Amino acid sequence: MDTSTAPPSATPAHPVLSRNASEPLAQQLAQRFAARIHQRLLLPGARLPSVRDCARHHGVSPYTVVAAYDQLLAQGLLEARKKRGFFVRETRPQPVRMPAPGPVPASVMPQPVDAGALIRGMFQADARRSPGLGTLPAEWLDLPLLQGTLRRLATQADDALLSGYGDPLGDLRLREALSLRLMDLSVHAAPSQVMTTVGATHGLDLTTRAFLKPGDAVLVDDPGWAIEYARLSQAGMRLLPVPRGEVGPDLDVMRRLIAEHRPRMYVTVSVLHNPTGATLSLASAHQILRIAHEADLLIVEDDTYAFFAPNHAPRLAALDQLQRTIYVSGFSKMLSPAWRVGFVAASPDRIAQLTELKLLASLTTSPLMDRAVALCLEQGLLRRHAERVSARLETARQRCARQVEDAGFRFAAPPAGLFGWVDVGVDTERLAQPMMDQGWLIAPGVLFSPTRQSGTLMRINFATSQDARFWRALLETVDRLRR
Amino acid sequence: MDTSTAPPSATPAHPVLSRNASEPLAQQLAQRFAARIHQRLLLPGARLPSVRDCARHHGVSPYTVVAAYDQLLAQGLLEARKKRGFFVRETRPQPVRMPAPGPVPASVMPQPVDAGALIRGMFQADARRSPGLGTLPAEWLDLPLLQGTLRRLATQADDALLSGYGDPLGDLRLREALSLRLMDLSVHAAPSQVMTTVGATHGLDLTTRAFLKPGDAVLVDDPGWAIEYARLSQAGMRLLPVPRGEVGPDLDVMRRLIAEHRPRMYVTVSVLHNPTGATLSLASAHQILRIAHEADLLIVEDDTYAFFAPNHAPRLAALDQLQRTIYVSGFSKMLSPAWRVGFVAASPDRIAQLTELKLLASLTTSPLMDRAVALCLEQGLLRRHAERVSARLETARQRCARQVEDAGFRFAAPPAGLFGWVDVGVDTERLAQPMMDQGWLIAPGVLFSPTRQSGTLMRINFATSQDARFWRALLETVDRLRR
Repeated sequence: MDTSTAPPSATPAHPVLSRNASEPLAQQLAQRFAARIHQRLLLPGARLPSVRDCARHHGVSPYTVVAAYDQLLAQGLLEARKKRGFFVRETRPQPVRMPAPGPVPASVMPQPVDAGALIRGMFQADARRSPGLGTLPAEWLDLPLLQGTLRRLATQADDALLSGYGDPLGDLRLREALSLRLMDLSVHAAPSQVMTTVGATHGLDLTTRAFLKPGDAVLVDDPGWAIEYARLSQAGMRLLPVPRGEVGPDLDVMRRLIAEHRPRMYVTVSVLHNPTGATLSLASAHQILRIAHEADLLIVEDDTYAFFAPNHAPRLAALDQLQRTIYVSGFSKMLSPAWRVGFVAASPDRIAQLTELKLLASLTTSPLMDRAVALCLEQGLLRRHAERVSARLETARQRCARQVEDAGFRFAAPPAGLFGWVDVGVDTERLAQPMMDQGWLIAPGVLFSPTRQSGTLMRINFATSQDARFWRALLETVDRLRR
Repeated sequence: MDTSTAPPSATPAHPVLSRNASEPLAQQLAQRFAARIHQRLLLPGARLPSVRDCARHHGVSPYTVVAAYDQLLAQGLLEARKKRGFFVRETRPQPVRMPAPGPVPASVMPQPVDAGALIRGMFQADARRSPGLGTLPAEWLDLPLLQGTLRRLATQADDALLSGYGDPLGDLRLREALSLRLMDLSVHAAPSQVMTTVGATHGLDLTTRAFLKPGDAVLVDDPGWAIEYARLSQAGMRLLPVPRGEVGPDLDVMRRLIAEHRPRMYVTVSVLHNPTGATLSLASAHQILRIAHEADLLIVEDDTYAFFAPNHAPRLAALDQLQRTIYVSGFSKMLSPAWRVGFVAASPDRIAQLTELKLLASLTTSPLMDRAVALCLEQGLLRRHAERVSARLETARQRCARQVEDAGFRFAAPPAGLFGWVDVGVDTERLAQPMMDQGWLIAPGVLFSPTRQSGTLMRINFATSQDARFWRALLETVDRLRR
């Protein structure tokens, strides 16, 4: 029984909030209200109980109630009216162009789907209902490995590791392990050429800040990832989209853009490109480097999906050995996003510039989290986990491929890695809202367009697109939109 | 016996490197060479053994040797000559203007002391020999608390915490604890007005990026902290130094600079200012806010030393309740720098802008490290530790005050908090090198000057300036320089 809006009583009659749950009371309370708003048990315009009444009713402190209301305000579910209290917000759909703060569970997301919503959704969506998710769901991760690593870290961390800033480059143990890992990818980088970061995104951000200035032109993959476009645009760069084909970028377009705009940098995902899943051919890689050499172009190779691909998949960094390629990767996709550990490998002079900037921007990143990732790498634990995931993903991919075929959709690129790039024949931006109304978070093509073009493509995550109900809902909704 | 440069033998005769030590073999090997270079047992120009010989001699893999040589290269102790091998570098003193990558133990630092050296030194100096240190030394921290917290984290972290990005704002448990902590400081900020960062420095960096553009003028404290000056300069800002007195900034100068340069922001340490230890008076705080209001100035209040000061010490954020003050603080100084956790509290709209930028720049920061700090805050553990440290620091401060007096030096501001700002009567930039030659890392005044003026002041850390030998060496060296 849910009693959130029942009249207050003098004693906490219903101990509906659990003090022993892992979630704080305020969060439990907020979720309770969010659910009621979503289920339309609390209608737009309805007034919430006063802080004091609500606190008394639930047997919690007024402070907990304020914190709960506060979360609901941040989620856009409530509005505060001066001296009158808190009210359920009218949910006029308003497109949000950029990610806003605060996690919004997909199930209670009030706005139409857009980049902001998907990105926020990424942070707290129910993975089972999110075929558009950008990561592996929790149940695909090796949770005992993660927990065991924290335990080993607690046991092994010496006083120096516990009490210091750590090395500005990052934990040496991790950098040594990464140097070996890079050797497996045929990239030769000494530990001093590796710098750790707060996930791959932070590595990409430092690279932009260190080597570009506002107004510079940057070649990007089209399609590609919305956060990357937003990050570069926010920093004042001009995006030059290069169509990405099955074996690599369109080199003619690239040459023309170089001649016209003199870009300084090309940012690209070579292996298991997001969203197409395509991997650069050796010939493309070779040509790109020749063009980059002629145009004196810096290449930033984002290898976020490295652990989903075979080691022999050609990296630009392996061809040019970090001469003009800056290699960026991380552990969020295969190990866990919670460590927030990524890294950059580059030539010594570029690593020096990047480290200087990292120092000014955050001194160091956590040596404890670096060490945790080192512990996962050192004994081949991550490698074995990656092998298991890859095998499981193979099966999931085949199952999805059958669903795509049965539905009469088609893959715009051969399915590979974590993502499929699927053409469903109707505008996927229009598709997203009715799908969300049915509780399914999808990733429409507009999220991957540097010019925000909508279209008939969408990205599916093979690991979270296994539910037959999703495919039924998708087919029915597509059919309805076609009519 | 040190055998690093002994002729190679077929078997590893001397197991001088320990495989069980907490330090990796490569680091042990690098330190061994660094010590020999520092002791001039290996002279500039000397050639190091080949990788293969060295590996055989020490019974380690060639890879370990490469990693060790690599560290020495990064530290500037070696140079590689093509096809000839590794040589001890000629140590011509070269001023380094900015922090360079790689930690350089103070004991082997080849350059004259400057901002770069001190900042690098901070990351791996021997605290017992570093009266110029910017943090508490490890033995002043509550190491059992840190280790216990990691253990509790391993036990308590649920699947969601272990496997997700976490909330873009930061862990809610931590933000709730911080909201309460801020209430103790008379700053009212809901958990949704708090955003966690990678230490306070990251908070300051995000604030610069979100609210300033290159070319903007920024008021800064003079003296102040070199990293802050460097960070703002690197981002293209114009620094406007405001002399910082015992009760606050020189308001006449501030008014004049505002009229002339129309700055957008004032970045200041209100409480236990670095390096003077001075705390703003209530009257100054009130005047600053009036001036800021008239000039539409954003105030960034860096409360890095919050835990060393009483809760009632006046914060600008407490006076204006985050109307135009952005409050930044962290845990590196009192708890540990290893978590890399700091936070920003600001008005809801500014927090929204900051969170958007944080998302683009690193998605989230580690929810695990956030939670670790929450665990330390929630049960008053950090508060009790801070009380113990403050009592101990009081004694240390008194002892240092006697040393200063006995030596005939004087404090330029009443000693308070972690740092003393001491006038020794000779140019402290000239003093730094001979002190370093004797193994003492000091913090000369030039590090705290926005215009890099040298002078007779230096900053001492009360916790690391307890050794009578330091005071003897200081007095002798000052006397020598006076002659």
